[in-house]
Amino acid sequence: MPPWGPDLATRLSDYSRRGKLLRGAMVSLGYALFADDPEVPQVCVDAGVAMELLQSFLLIHDDIMDQDLVRRGGPSVHAQYIDASPVGDDRERSELYGISMGICAGDVSAFMAMDVLGSLELPADRRMPILAMVSREITAVGLAQMQDVHHGYVDDADETAILRVYTYKTGRYTFSLPLSIGAMIANAQTRRIETLGALGESLGRIFQIRDDQLGIFGDTETIGKPAGSDIREDKKTLFRYHVFANDRDGRYRRLFGSDSVGADELEDLRDYLRRQGIIDRVESLVESEAAQARRLIERLQIPADRRAGLEKLLEYNLTRSV
Amino acid sequence: MPPWGPDLATRLSDYSRRGKLLRGAMVSLGYALFADDPEVPQVCVDAGVAMELLQSFLLIHDDIMDQDLVRRGGPSVHAQYIDASPVGDDRERSELYGISMGICAGDVSAFMAMDVLGSLELPADRRMPILAMVSREITAVGLAQMQDVHHGYVDDADETAILRVYTYKTGRYTFSLPLSIGAMIANAQTRRIETLGALGESLGRIFQIRDDQLGIFGDTETIGKPAGSDIREDKKTLFRYHVFANDRDGRYRRLFGSDSVGADELEDLRDYLRRQGIIDRVESLVESEAAQARRLIERLQIPADRRAGLEKLLEYNLTRSV
Repeated sequence: MPPWGPDLATRLSDYSRRGKLLRGAMVSLGYALFADDPEVPQVCVDAGVAMELLQSFLLIHDDIMDQDLVRRGGPSVHAQYIDASPVGDDRERSELYGISMGICAGDVSAFMAMDVLGSLELPADRRMPILAMVSREITAVGLAQMQDVHHGYVDDADETAILRVYTYKTGRYTFSLPLSIGAMIANAQTRRIETLGALGESLGRIFQIRDDQLGIFGDTETIGKPAGSDIREDKKTLFRYHVFANDRDGRYRRLFGSDSVGADELEDLRDYLRRQGIIDRVESLVESEAAQARRLIERLQIPADRRAGLEKLLEYNLTRSV
Repeated sequence: MPPWGPDLATRLSDYSRRGKLLRGAMVSLGYALFADDPEVPQVCVDAGVAMELLQSFLLIHDDIMDQDLVRRGGPSVHAQYIDASPVGDDRERSELYGISMGICAGDVSAFMAMDVLGSLELPADRRMPILAMVSREITAVGLAQMQDVHHGYVDDADETAILRVYTYKTGRYTFSLPLSIGAMIANAQTRRIETLGALGESLGRIFQIRDDQLGIFGDTETIGKPAGSDIREDKKTLFRYHVFANDRDGRYRRLFGSDSVGADELEDLRDYLRRQGIIDRVESLVESEAAQARRLIERLQIPADRRAGLEKLLEYNLTRSV
């Protein structure tokens, strides 16, 4: 085994610890819904590790695409390799070194995740469907990421494309996949795993819409980045879609992607979103997703005490302010 | 499923067709060694498709790292996305668009490969070890690629590190992995699969050393790139290692990485390699690898007629001139 492994393992471990470990935790939540024994077994922890390795893989590549040098309160992984470049005095070549090593680091993290999943302490015929599901879902995430990248370079972003990115990048990947893996470890029926998959989509769309809302209405302190930065970066959200569809004279449209959006203009935009009923419109989508989520939770037919975790998760996604 | 899929599928299919399909073919060769029925079943073809998708994944990422816009006689995949950039008039942003879409395209190709392997028509307990082996080997390839990237930025490259790159990037990945998968499909014994793995390492080291030799002694016509380009690019080969270890006054060392190496200097270097016994030294390594390969083929204990494919492969690797 080449010697870059131990160094990368340390970087990946530090990097994961700086994150929320949300996706790893979702595996245990999915397991607890269907297991008789409330104790979470080692195999869930291992699958959770694999989810976090996949998350590292995607974030590392994401940061290269977005040229983000900071992530999770520290240097992003390719930024670490830029700093470690053997040609430090040549900035341009050091950047290419960092990008190259970062691409490799992401690739290694991805296949380490598959290796961990391939070694889960489960019979082969129960491990196999987990690997198959992960392969399909990460393929879909990659395609959604292409859409998301493309959105960063164009003005036009329709509702369907935006919702598709929410569904695959946030819904199926962050919620459906790890919840389903937990349920599969607990040997849940296929019908229930499918219900959980659909539930994850709703949870993800709600999560993402709240994220977008915080990006516009949150203040610098709560959201941890400058207020209005989503507007300045022209992030393709449902709110933006509705502004572009309604604002005929372009007074508000021109704010998206403008570096100079100030506090007054931001407040103006917020007023416009309320006045035009855009907030209400998006909120009614959130409400119908929440109603759908409650129906799906019901359909799982699990005892009330086990359902509590899911209900709390839905509540958190609906009301989170950070 | 996001709409980028069909477009990428066409690109990947065209891209694979332009290649040698060597790794895909190795699966069938590995199968034929141990199968009673000489006909290659569909499952080998499917596994071969997965090998070619993995190869596309690695090449796409490789070309981003090396900033290569041409591959397999056409535009590399990220170059295709640079050309398709929606901000075509802005070269710098178009390059980032191409790099970003290329990273995604590679990632998607990697997980499509895993999806194909996860759907192989084999019982789960026989499919599972194939996915586990692929995960481990591609992790190792990623780490070897980090070493290879690093070699592109430093002067120092020792024999061990160079041979490690040959072993993992060419040996285990190009030969051991697909040959072993074919053997696993044919239900070969573990002991024989391990022997095949070791054989692949020798085959790969021979293949790579011949490649390096062609890079120095081949002419523009046979190698399909300008004569001496490996020298100008300062490719970290065993020949280079021995030149750096022997050439005290730096007369030949200075040629490596120099843009201006001409035909006369190249001929001088070739003379030096012969005179100093470097050619002989590397050739004796090739001979010992070939002897090892022959012993391993023997150890497989397969009938002579089935062995012919492997012997031809060894012969090809030893004598190839393109």
